[in-house]
Amino acid sequence: MTGADAVADGQGAVRLLDRTRTAVNPQLRSTVETLPGSMRRVAMYHFGWEHADGTPAAEHPGKAIRPALVLAATRALGAEEAGAVKAAAAVELAHNFTLLHDDIVDEDVTRRHRPTAWTVFGVPDALIAGDAMSALALRMLAEDPHPASAAASARLAACIIELCAGQQADCAFERRAPREVSLDECLAMATAKTGALLGASCAIGALYAGAGDEEVAAMDAFGREAGLAFQLIDDLIGIWGDPERTGKPAGADLVAHKKSLPVVAALASGTPAGDELAELYARPVLDEAAVRAAADAVERAGGRDWAQGQAAERMGRAVEHLAQAVPDPAAAGDMLALAEFVTRRTR
Amino acid sequence: MTGADAVADGQGAVRLLDRTRTAVNPQLRSTVETLPGSMRRVAMYHFGWEHADGTPAAEHPGKAIRPALVLAATRALGAEEAGAVKAAAAVELAHNFTLLHDDIVDEDVTRRHRPTAWTVFGVPDALIAGDAMSALALRMLAEDPHPASAAASARLAACIIELCAGQQADCAFERRAPREVSLDECLAMATAKTGALLGASCAIGALYAGAGDEEVAAMDAFGREAGLAFQLIDDLIGIWGDPERTGKPAGADLVAHKKSLPVVAALASGTPAGDELAELYARPVLDEAAVRAAADAVERAGGRDWAQGQAAERMGRAVEHLAQAVPDPAAAGDMLALAEFVTRRTR
Repeated sequence: MTGADAVADGQGAVRLLDRTRTAVNPQLRSTVETLPGSMRRVAMYHFGWEHADGTPAAEHPGKAIRPALVLAATRALGAEEAGAVKAAAAVELAHNFTLLHDDIVDEDVTRRHRPTAWTVFGVPDALIAGDAMSALALRMLAEDPHPASAAASARLAACIIELCAGQQADCAFERRAPREVSLDECLAMATAKTGALLGASCAIGALYAGAGDEEVAAMDAFGREAGLAFQLIDDLIGIWGDPERTGKPAGADLVAHKKSLPVVAALASGTPAGDELAELYARPVLDEAAVRAAADAVERAGGRDWAQGQAAERMGRAVEHLAQAVPDPAAAGDMLALAEFVTRRTR
Repeated sequence: MTGADAVADGQGAVRLLDRTRTAVNPQLRSTVETLPGSMRRVAMYHFGWEHADGTPAAEHPGKAIRPALVLAATRALGAEEAGAVKAAAAVELAHNFTLLHDDIVDEDVTRRHRPTAWTVFGVPDALIAGDAMSALALRMLAEDPHPASAAASARLAACIIELCAGQQADCAFERRAPREVSLDECLAMATAKTGALLGASCAIGALYAGAGDEEVAAMDAFGREAGLAFQLIDDLIGIWGDPERTGKPAGADLVAHKKSLPVVAALASGTPAGDELAELYARPVLDEAAVRAAADAVERAGGRDWAQGQAAERMGRAVEHLAQAVPDPAAAGDMLALAEFVTRRTR
């Protein structure tokens, strides 16, 4: 199933992701297995392929959105996806390097329902394993004999720098008072942290299809805008929850005092509700009633409507960029299905 | 001055390093300045170009051994060094990424007579800046239009993985009892941690000169063997000091209970002096008399002679590999002068 069917169905994306994991995971895993010594152990654990003691584990795979975008972009531009499997694996490896280091920096203790690698192996080993995974991702591309591999390697390296900038900005925001972070800064951070790698995935897929500069740029813009739409919707779910999902409880981001996009929009609204929210965010602990009051204040300050409107606008722009890169709607169907999936409009 | 003169003089290497800094630093600095936000700040501080507050600093440059090897290898194989300046800068950037992360992992508080970056900017910002520097080094090579750039990028990425493996092994050794670390493991660790990047520097210079696989491999082997000779001599200085240098006090490595190569060789000697050393290393603190006794035990156990012999043997092998890659001694002179310099036989 491809094209418009996949979008209408929504199951299309799930099948695309399954297919991607089947195509990419053997390459990804065999590459990770080349890492020397305990770096291999840390990486195999992080990917969910091994337990902490090195025994085989049932896979808890990531969703494989990024490699799916690489392969779908290659197909959408008329090339065989088989030629881009290494590139897809490299992108997923780079993504997981950033997760491994983000968990250290953010001191997060859980990832994919398991203890994070640094809590199991210690910061030094997790840090060093992440360094090696980053270099391995870029090496995979640089060594790939495909004619687009050097350009793809440069693009992925540039994207890693942008991901670092996004993560650094995120950390810096945490240390600032809520109203010291502007909405523009917040949008720029979300673009760097979430949009950049989705954009690079689409761009690398396009490069592997032999696309020209304009198509590659349009593919990158599609991924970036879809990524920002995803972040906006994720932030909405972090406040109001998702009736169709049990993963993230309503209010979780408010309890954590997260400076998410709807929150920052509300704080910047200049409304009395924005002031109420600022007062609530100044409290060190928010009880259940305060969380409800904060969610209500975000809504009355216009943060919810703004985020929903922005998400729709970003998706609209994403679709326009996609049509520019891939004028045939049937050929663009898989890309669109994946974008709809990441923004959780379908499942 | 080139060739045999430089070796005889010893000042030749100093001049080569000065010339390298003049040729490479503008490229290196302008690339580092492209890093976004506070990652730029951290990197500029680490390189000694800025104070912690972002004001310009008098340079405390690294010795630039690695970029000097890149350029010397390119020249030795008959190409213009100007074409390899970006590659030389990329290697120095990669080297500094590893220093930045090593300081975090080893919790070192001083580097080049200044507080280390993580003590100034915190672990998160230093970690993220290092990630970006690694990607930037590989990006510089991948984006370089030189025909050898993709191969050089792949080689540098592979080398970064090996450096990570070396650093990880070093950390693991620290956690083990002195006699649980074998001499072979210790040599393999030193090769990965010190030899790999000196080898890659020579190999990348050769690639940029359009050399064939055999010359590239011989250049890599030259750098690796010279790197190991350097490490052995550095380890000797860490125990007995260097009458011609004031930098490292005699006994410093013994005070720190370092499992350096002469120490591990002595512990593995099966001699009574090796047992004496093991007894001394089991003490949590070594006073001045104990340090003298430990140095004496390493010597009587044969650790000093072994290390001196190994260093000479490694340098001999290095020279053989160099002659294979560059049969004309005059053309090989600068490479040899640099190798002699790093092993501190001349200054």
